[in-house]
Amino acid sequence: MKLGRVVGVTDAVVKLPQGFQVAASHCGVKPGASAEKDDLALFVSDRPSSAAGVFTTNLVCGAPVKVSRERVPGSRVRAVLMNSGNANACTGQQGIADAEQLTARVGELIGAAANDVLICSTGVIGRLLPVSKMVAALPQLVEGLGPTPEHALAGARAIMTTDTVPKLATTVAMVGGKEVRLTGVCKGAAMIAPNMATMLCVIMSDVAVPAELATGMLKLAVNQSFNRISVDGHESTSDSVLFLANGAAGVTPELPGDRRALQTALDQVTRELALAIIADAEGAEHFIHIHVRGCRDEGEAARLARTIADSPLVKTAIYGADPNWGRIVSAAGYAGVPFAESDLSLTMNGVELYRQGVPQPFDAAAVSAGLRNQRHVEVELTLTLGTAETEFWTSDLTKEYVALNADYTT
Amino acid sequence: MKLGRVVGVTDAVVKLPQGFQVAASHCGVKPGASAEKDDLALFVSDRPSSAAGVFTTNLVCGAPVKVSRERVPGSRVRAVLMNSGNANACTGQQGIADAEQLTARVGELIGAAANDVLICSTGVIGRLLPVSKMVAALPQLVEGLGPTPEHALAGARAIMTTDTVPKLATTVAMVGGKEVRLTGVCKGAAMIAPNMATMLCVIMSDVAVPAELATGMLKLAVNQSFNRISVDGHESTSDSVLFLANGAAGVTPELPGDRRALQTALDQVTRELALAIIADAEGAEHFIHIHVRGCRDEGEAARLARTIADSPLVKTAIYGADPNWGRIVSAAGYAGVPFAESDLSLTMNGVELYRQGVPQPFDAAAVSAGLRNQRHVEVELTLTLGTAETEFWTSDLTKEYVALNADYTT
Repeated sequence: MKLGRVVGVTDAVVKLPQGFQVAASHCGVKPGASAEKDDLALFVSDRPSSAAGVFTTNLVCGAPVKVSRERVPGSRVRAVLMNSGNANACTGQQGIADAEQLTARVGELIGAAANDVLICSTGVIGRLLPVSKMVAALPQLVEGLGPTPEHALAGARAIMTTDTVPKLATTVAMVGGKEVRLTGVCKGAAMIAPNMATMLCVIMSDVAVPAELATGMLKLAVNQSFNRISVDGHESTSDSVLFLANGAAGVTPELPGDRRALQTALDQVTRELALAIIADAEGAEHFIHIHVRGCRDEGEAARLARTIADSPLVKTAIYGADPNWGRIVSAAGYAGVPFAESDLSLTMNGVELYRQGVPQPFDAAAVSAGLRNQRHVEVELTLTLGTAETEFWTSDLTKEYVALNADYTT
Repeated sequence: MKLGRVVGVTDAVVKLPQGFQVAASHCGVKPGASAEKDDLALFVSDRPSSAAGVFTTNLVCGAPVKVSRERVPGSRVRAVLMNSGNANACTGQQGIADAEQLTARVGELIGAAANDVLICSTGVIGRLLPVSKMVAALPQLVEGLGPTPEHALAGARAIMTTDTVPKLATTVAMVGGKEVRLTGVCKGAAMIAPNMATMLCVIMSDVAVPAELATGMLKLAVNQSFNRISVDGHESTSDSVLFLANGAAGVTPELPGDRRALQTALDQVTRELALAIIADAEGAEHFIHIHVRGCRDEGEAARLARTIADSPLVKTAIYGADPNWGRIVSAAGYAGVPFAESDLSLTMNGVELYRQGVPQPFDAAAVSAGLRNQRHVEVELTLTLGTAETEFWTSDLTKEYVALNADYTT
């Protein structure tokens, strides 16, 4: 299993799909933030694009979520505006008006209707956006659009909040005998829980797919990626994953094999970005991969995995390199999935700790040393209830996570 | 609202109910633990007692839970044996045989059947009890039984794990014109989540009530106390609350008024002990009282309160004296309770932060100073959906909590 790969600007694969351009700039969304840190990113297609979106299920959601959700699935979407530094959430009617005004202004500048511009915001909750400052910055932002890897990387940097690295992933699929490209950009490091994370993500592709098909494919992809990670179990107000397919490559997946190839590529990009979020989780010292097997259905496997992933006691034990497997087994016990203790087996980093309800003798010092010396932790929980399985990724809970989150707004 | 009062030995009210005796001793349950720390406690009634129990709902539960659960409701219960240092959980058939052997031996020593002795264990999961060492210590433990406040306090001390103070609560109720006494002893500081905490609790009373009535009353009491607290949301394998009523006061609650008086007394003792657990939560610097009002039913209110209480982002913000109310509101949004943002209002320490979906201007520096300077935090969430309400208590998430839990077994 490979850690989320963070693609740097020198990596030739971060070529944008045909017809897409990206720009970034600083306008001072968050008062007092460094003028060197960009806080606006714009993603533009030169032609109308199919667009799909998956959003937070939190009932308290940001104005940008409300505005963008109304505009997908769409068949003529041209752009996505993103900002960091302010989530524009819990901001009432004014927040919605602000989001609408920003998309309208972007539309004017690129020759599109407001309805064909999407918007995502991330940052502090409960504060109004500095809209006039942002509107004033838009002409220069549009001027700066470009298709190079540097542009893509600048866009990824502009949406970072507590992220320590920009997150991009790209891949190619063969569809109808032609190459199509998928490039995803995302941010996220905390307030990460399925469904989904405080994460914004836009995936651009030059394939041609109807918006409804794009929506179905995106939901499948999100379910095996962003819905299978958790940093702290706190579901955000702002989570948005957007998929834009502008057809510039001149090819559409007609045959089942073409669709499978495209789905595989989309799964790959979203999975890579999701793992990059966990690899960059706030304050984390361990990257924890939980594999649950032998369940009646995948939903049960996911519930078990998530309950283990969200337990502060499991997360602190791994931080402390303590193979305290009782905490893992006991978390499984309150996941709401019916089983008997004799159904349960557990290994950590390949060492068997518990077999069908019976503790196994193991070298605790060796397992502890392994936890201390390597970042990657493998937890495998196996039940005897069926054949369904799932994978899930999380991080440990460290003093640094507490310090980072103890003083965020003040 | 009063902090859980920890009753000291000099406080005259810790008189045991008539016919009860307590003893404590050290036998070395946990290898390497201080010989000065007692690890065995025994609670004995001189006559057969009605007994009720409420236990963890975790499917992975300790052997003592399995054994004691079979023996309540009971009408002839004589004793409860408790140990700290080892939870006897995830220990398979051997763990059950060990628990049975210990209760049988206590029974022999006090002249009771094994079935009339209950057992509770707390500590590390997945290790077998040192049974021969424990059995060898029992005669001296029985010898040491006594009815004084010192005996009660020693019992409370013996069951402490990471608790920093012993936890006792006592009260008196007038039943049928006579005074009956209720005295509760409990432990718990982490792995605390409703239903319930890693907590053991025994409540002794000299009132006479049938075991079925005692069970119903105990469930009501637990629901408004131990099921309304959370430290870390991790539901334990060992939670047990026992209620023994031996009738030594010679009075039974025949009239509805008598039953109400007894229920009130039981509610009071369990509530006081539950708050003592939160006041002593591992590494905590704040005691957080969450009051949710205006819900359709109490279950919804509790779901909202618990989701807020379990959010690491809410808990770290309060630790950092950061009035980051967006985290509280957004936690409410993923509690699974249907509402609109305009239904929601929030105050913290009496300061209005959010009114029916609209952020309110407030003096962030003053609220932050209040959080920094006082241990007690009041969070009031008010909805407009109905008239049901609930109270819930939790603690903040501190670097000290992480440090304490990062290195527990090794």
